[in-house]
Amino acid sequence: MHIHHSQLEVRTDGKATYEITNDVQDKIDKSGVRNGIATIFVQHTSCSLTMMENAAPAARRDVEKFFEKLVPEDADYEHDDEGPDDMPSHIRMVLTRTSETVPIVDGKMQLGTWQGIFLFEHRRAPHRRRVHLTMVGD
Amino acid sequence: MHIHHSQLEVRTDGKATYEITNDVQDKIDKSGVRNGIATIFVQHTSCSLTMMENAAPAARRDVEKFFEKLVPEDADYEHDDEGPDDMPSHIRMVLTRTSETVPIVDGKMQLGTWQGIFLFEHRRAPHRRRVHLTMVGD
Amino acid sequence: MHIHHSQLEVRTDGKATYEITNDVQDKIDKSGVRNGIATIFVQHTSCSLTMMENAAPAARRDVEKFFEKLVPEDADYEHDDEGPDDMPSHIRMVLTRTSETVPIVDGKMQLGTWQGIFLFEHRRAPHRRRVHLTMVGD
Repeated sequence: MHIHHSQLEVRTDGKATYEITNDVQDKIDKSGVRNGIATIFVQHTSCSLTMMENAAPAARRDVEKFFEKLVPEDADYEHDDEGPDDMPSHIRMVLTRTSETVPIVDGKMQLGTWQGIFLFEHRRAPHRRRVHLTMVGD
Repeated sequence: MHIHHSQLEVRTDGKATYEITNDVQDKIDKSGVRNGIATIFVQHTSCSLTMMENAAPAARRDVEKFFEKLVPEDADYEHDDEGPDDMPSHIRMVLTRTSETVPIVDGKMQLGTWQGIFLFEHRRAPHRRRVHLTMVGD
Repeated sequence: MHIHHSQLEVRTDGKATYEITNDVQDKIDKSGVRNGIATIFVQHTSCSLTMMENAAPAARRDVEKFFEKLVPEDADYEHDDEGPDDMPSHIRMVLTRTSETVPIVDGKMQLGTWQGIFLFEHRRAPHRRRVHLTMVGD
């Protein structure tokens, strides 16, 4: 049994969901871990990791619209140093997730049929986002 | 140290929370892992895994009512292929969780006094839900 | 490769976020694990674990204000045995998180520049909160 670390860089271009399922699976393939778990950890406080329906782009747009309305840019925030999308990005992150741990069997993540892994970007400007992966297993 | 995989099937009958704490503990007992971690992973995008107060059914009904109001069925969603409860189910899932990792000591999950593990069903129709468990430890 | 368990007690004094990043790192230092993962698990249903922006106290106050408005104490809850902050505390917990798993490389948690680990207290009265840590690695 061993530990394998790996990193992904995800380039984002505004508020949206960016699928990273295949990138994560590629890193697992390279790690040689066939049986165990993969922890996916986003190293930021203004974007999130989320599992999501991967077949329907309209569903993803509805998720984005929902968060836009739930955590509006024009609310009265005390912290607004970096523009109107700054504070909502931190709140969206708290409402969603930073890490997920996914089982690996026969070298493959055990996702359900419609499950994809997404980086959920909450900032307007382009960013390079770092995602740390740790595989534990044989 | 070893890896042990196991699966649960949870039959749901409409929007509600279904406790699976004892089912998860049974699978840990069978795995023989006495010291380590258990990752619980729901393989769906229209139901969630959540920890919850396990002693008060009224508290669970209040949680369900809150989500019904926060993510209403009658909002104007672009994605509505599978009926009015489809899109809200994906948003509820993003707002909650897909996996949790729980410590195991002396063969027992280290839950707090009032903590239970629940599958949170977001669809109206009956479903068979798959939960993948991975134990890592001795 | 081994498993190391450890516990933190966090004293809280009302609704707020309490940073525990250094306490978690101290326990990892003591565990001797230099390469692996750390699972942080909160053993309660009325407070949460959350990653958050650690440099701006105003950002944390905005998060707290947001949750106060999203899950108000004066809504009409069925479960109110323990006062007006009881039911909102369980809903806030469901909307946030109970566990996170963080990578460890060279003995250090691989957090991003602005990431801190926080206990998010949802009750008004002072509490002693238990956080269970499990390190898996070499």
